[in-house]
Formats: sequence, structure tokens, C-alpha cells
Amino acid sequence: MVGPCFISFFLFLNLLPFFQTLEASHCSINGLPLVRNIAELPQDNYGRGGLSHITVAGSLLHGLKEVEVWLQTFAPGSRTPIHRHSCEEVFVVLKGSGTLYLASSSHKSPGKPEEHFIFSNSTFHIPVNDVHQVWNTNEHEDLQVLVIISRPPIKVFIYEDWSMPHTAAKLKFPYYWDEQCFQESQHDEL
Amino acid sequence: MVGPCFISFFLFLNLLPFFQTLEASHCSINGLPLVRNIAELPQDNYGRGGLSHITVAGSLLHGLKEVEVWLQTFAPGSRTPIHRHSCEEVFVVLKGSGTLYLASSSHKSPGKPEEHFIFSNSTFHIPVNDVHQVWNTNEHEDLQVLVIISRPPIKVFIYEDWSMPHTAAKLKFPYYWDEQCFQESQHDEL
Repeated sequence: MVGPCFISFFLFLNLLPFFQTLEASHCSINGLPLVRNIAELPQDNYGRGGLSHITVAGSLLHGLKEVEVWLQTFAPGSRTPIHRHSCEEVFVVLKGSGTLYLASSSHKSPGKPEEHFIFSNSTFHIPVNDVHQVWNTNEHEDLQVLVIISRPPIKVFIYEDWSMPHTAAKLKFPYYWDEQCFQESQHDEL
Repeated sequence: MVGPCFISFFLFLNLLPFFQTLEASHCSINGLPLVRNIAELPQDNYGRGGLSHITVAGSLLHGLKEVEVWLQTFAPGSRTPIHRHSCEEVFVVLKGSGTLYLASSSHKSPGKPEEHFIFSNSTFHIPVNDVHQVWNTNEHEDLQVLVIISRPPIKVFIYEDWSMPHTAAKLKFPYYWDEQCFQESQHDEL
């Protein structure tokens, strides 16, 4: 039982090892069960060393139009690019710790970012269009996060460094994990 | 390290017991840190027995406009009302098991719902406007879920039973956990 002003949580989420190849068919929502085991969903690093990405509930994969949920694991030392997007983004840190680098979008270029320590059982959100980077700065442990974005599929502007002007940031769309399904959905329309 | 086609997750999320009274000030985003410890966020049952609700990232609490994230725990036997809403909703089951009851919105009333077993480490989403109920039908364990909704704050239409016509369902807005902050934000505008 949960008392009104007292809480004791114990969350144990164990994704068993599994082996799954990414096949074209994973882009089709046909035949997918409504309730899906996250341990059986396709995961890949999409060519990015140290990353594991699973689209838990997706736009191109599951037909969502307003929200999308990812489960991502960053090996020690690995990180996202420096980037921004015009959708809202919420993080829930499930495991490990690291650093969020965050810079406002109010000047010509991001400039020196603020540094925020992020840790297991913490949450934070990225203000729309603010430039940010999530980095597993913990040398000993994976950083695992649930990521929620609005208005999928995501359109990301990528920066080479924090001094690059906003106008020089490069659009990456479709993004890594949406690329294959985006192209398939384009073919479907022909 | 995470290999490209192999995954082994171990997630341990322990929200330590804490005691926190709900004060008016929790509706203000002023002074809130960007990174927040979920164990220190206000939780309550809002008069609903067996429920624990935490707004992890919210519209009225944190200024989000497009997505909202809740952490909810249902004691054995407890459940949501039978309800629908026009926003998208994604569940990630963190702990326990239960039953999702789901009925289409395409007839005059919901009618007999489909039953779906939900379990730890599963995910599902509720099609927009479909009538549903989440029930902890496991007598021995709490059911803990992360809930993501779009277009907050949520507006819920509640049904007394599955045979009630859609047109008779009653709007509950603001919803339980938004009620206090909604009224405060109204006062702020005067």
C-alpha cells in the first residue's frame, strides 16, 4: 500500500539479453501487439559508438503523432552531439550519472554551456531550442535514460562546437533511428 | 559497453522513503532546480485510495506545453476510472503487473472492453479517445507505471461503467493533481 505522504519505491527493470537483427519489417506497425515487451524491441547504436537506442513508442514505428519515448544507454565517455530541436524533451535518468551541458538560444551562438550534474532517479527537461549535450562523464557505469519528445519525428540541428553560430548548425533529418523507417514510409507512398 | 545486437540492462531505481507535505508553493516553478530528484517531488493520492501520483515533469508545475510525465503506483486492487481523453498517452510499466481494459470510441458506448495483460518492462499506448482503464489485478504487488501524455494539462471524460454512452461521460477538468495549481495559476492572472 502507498500512504498519502510516504513513499517507498523499488523498481527493478531487467532487460534480459537478447539478440535481434534489424529487419525492414520492424518499420511496420502491422501485426505489432498493443502491449510490447521492451526487452524484445529492436535496439541498435546506429553507427554511434557507445550508444544503445530503443524506440519504446514511436512516430514512424507505432503511429504516434504527438509524443515519442526512447530508452537510451550511453557507455562511459559516450555522449550526444551538441544539438538543439524545437520540440520539448524530458529526461528520466534510470541508471548511472553524467553531465548535462545546456546553453541558451538567445545569442548568436551557444557559448559556454551551463553544467548540470545528472544522476539516477533525477529528471530534467530541455527548454525548446536550447542547445544541449548529454555526456556520460562517469567512467565506471553506463548512463541509462528514458527520453520523451513532443512532435515526432525529431528534427535535430547539430553543432560542431559551442562557438558555432546557430545559423551554421546542420539539420539532421530524419534522425539516425528514424532514417530506415522514414525511407520505407516514403516508398510506401509511391 | 553495449554491443550492437546485444543488450543487457539492469535498472535499479529506488525512491527512498520521504515525507513531504503539499504546500501551495509547489505550484510555482520559481526556484525549482533544472535537475530534480524524483524522490523529492511532491506525491499524493489526491483522495483516491491506493494511488500514489508524482508529476515528474508537468505543464502547470514546470511550464511544459506539449508533454507531461507522471510516476504512478497502484496498490493491489486499485485502478483508474473508466475514462477517455483526446491526447496521446504512453505507458511504461516499471514494476508489477495488471490489466489494461480498452474499448474503441467508434460506437455509441464503449461496450465490453478488450483485456490486455500488462507486465514489468512492457509498454503500450492508448489510441486517442479510446476508453480505457488500468487496473492492478495482481493481489501481491504494487503496479508502478511511468505515464506520458501529450497536450497537457489533461482533460478527462469519466464513465460510470462500460455501457455508458460517450455523450454521458463527465468531464473532469482540471484533473486531480492539477486542481490546486490550476486554481493558483488562475489567481495569478487576476
